[in-house]
Amino acid sequence: MFNFTIKVYYEDTDSGGVVYYANYLKFIERARTNLIFELGFTLKSLIEDHDCQFVVKNINCNFIKSAKLEEILSIHSKILKVKKASLELEQNILRNEELIFKSQITIVSINSEGKPLKINRLLYDKMNENIY
Amino acid sequence: MFNFTIKVYYEDTDSGGVVYYANYLKFIERARTNLIFELGFTLKSLIEDHDCQFVVKNINCNFIKSAKLEEILSIHSKILKVKKASLELEQNILRNEELIFKSQITIVSINSEGKPLKINRLLYDKMNENIY
Amino acid sequence: MFNFTIKVYYEDTDSGGVVYYANYLKFIERARTNLIFELGFTLKSLIEDHDCQFVVKNINCNFIKSAKLEEILSIHSKILKVKKASLELEQNILRNEELIFKSQITIVSINSEGKPLKINRLLYDKMNENIY
Amino acid sequence: MFNFTIKVYYEDTDSGGVVYYANYLKFIERARTNLIFELGFTLKSLIEDHDCQFVVKNINCNFIKSAKLEEILSIHSKILKVKKASLELEQNILRNEELIFKSQITIVSINSEGKPLKINRLLYDKMNENIY
Repeated sequence: MFNFTIKVYYEDTDSGGVVYYANYLKFIERARTNLIFELGFTLKSLIEDHDCQFVVKNINCNFIKSAKLEEILSIHSKILKVKKASLELEQNILRNEELIFKSQITIVSINSEGKPLKINRLLYDKMNENIY
Repeated sequence: MFNFTIKVYYEDTDSGGVVYYANYLKFIERARTNLIFELGFTLKSLIEDHDCQFVVKNINCNFIKSAKLEEILSIHSKILKVKKASLELEQNILRNEELIFKSQITIVSINSEGKPLKINRLLYDKMNENIY
Repeated sequence: MFNFTIKVYYEDTDSGGVVYYANYLKFIERARTNLIFELGFTLKSLIEDHDCQFVVKNINCNFIKSAKLEEILSIHSKILKVKKASLELEQNILRNEELIFKSQITIVSINSEGKPLKINRLLYDKMNENIY
Repeated sequence: MFNFTIKVYYEDTDSGGVVYYANYLKFIERARTNLIFELGFTLKSLIEDHDCQFVVKNINCNFIKSAKLEEILSIHSKILKVKKASLELEQNILRNEELIFKSQITIVSINSEGKPLKINRLLYDKMNENIY
């Protein structure tokens, strides 16, 4: 499991006094960028060397509790399944030990023309080694 | 069905050259605010007069095609079901006639303490009259 | 003078109960996109046909009053000066008749390599005709 | 001088391939939140215990170079002057040793009614000790 920590800033909140719902998707995207980095790649290297971009195809989110200004949140990312040109993740957000956001995500690998692209072999293997 | 139109600005895009995935959730939230307005209410009046806020509990999104800078998008919002303290919506985004984003959403009505709150009778009736 | 109207949504506010300060810069950028459009151009056409992008070089902002959820704001954009590869604007935001935000902006025209680029003649002339 | 580091994510960029101009204001606001924290306070404690919020009154920004996806940026914040109910900061952003963004900011301390409020004595003293 991959763990990534963020802090809630003013920009993340709305006038309801809590984190704006779309911003949880920003938090988990930051975690995915760092997951790729922990596997030895950068988004930049994937684009420049492999013409590969990952885009979200489907996401299902449950908003369980609200996060507030200056809270520290942990994002837990689990790789559930890896296919040739796609992968499935679970990404949950916790405040202390409490689950506040839950999501399942399908991501596809595409080239610069938007066509499905086989995930680079090395990255594919790394992902497979890290299936939760 | 409720129809709301937006234009894509630089702020909505990312360096992939398309609308950043979380921003579709901003677009459909704007459409919900205007749906409430078309039913004769404002978010402000609901908060101040009824201590009522609507929060998203669950969302399931399919990202079908990518939108780009300066494109005009139509957001189609359909009320599927209304219960005492929650409702279900379908919110789709189209570019011209083409479906590019699809979502199903469960929204709950809460008071300022975060407890479930019966939707104001007048608004509840209006929503029921407009079930798709 | 160019006039553009926006509505404040949840995404624009923060937990202070007002529009987050950086978001006024989003509002005025939307107004600039529409100013270019009123002059007969799109950002897309400028990029694709003229390899031209406008980027902000300097901005000076005064935050006078706070805007709130669902308020309707008018953005008044005035072209103050046009040079070969840059222009100066004043962009103010009003709520009803009240000035709530004031800014002076210097924008430069660059090509895809980031080098200064002479503004397209037709657009240059249009801008000059519309100096406030 | 206070130093704070951030990483550029997809959410920060726009289709021009670089960080969207308003997002630099988000970065420096994160740095200010952490500056307050380094001085021994949180925004939450200031609001709850002292009815004190800091709001930006004026900002002057120079955009010197563009930041890109996954770059690591350093935000250097210097307190220039502290008055009873306001302060002046310089906040610059560097990529490696290179200055890419420069800003001067005036911030005022207000209470929940939006009236100017004397900065809490302890925080005022801490700020004064840290004038650059």
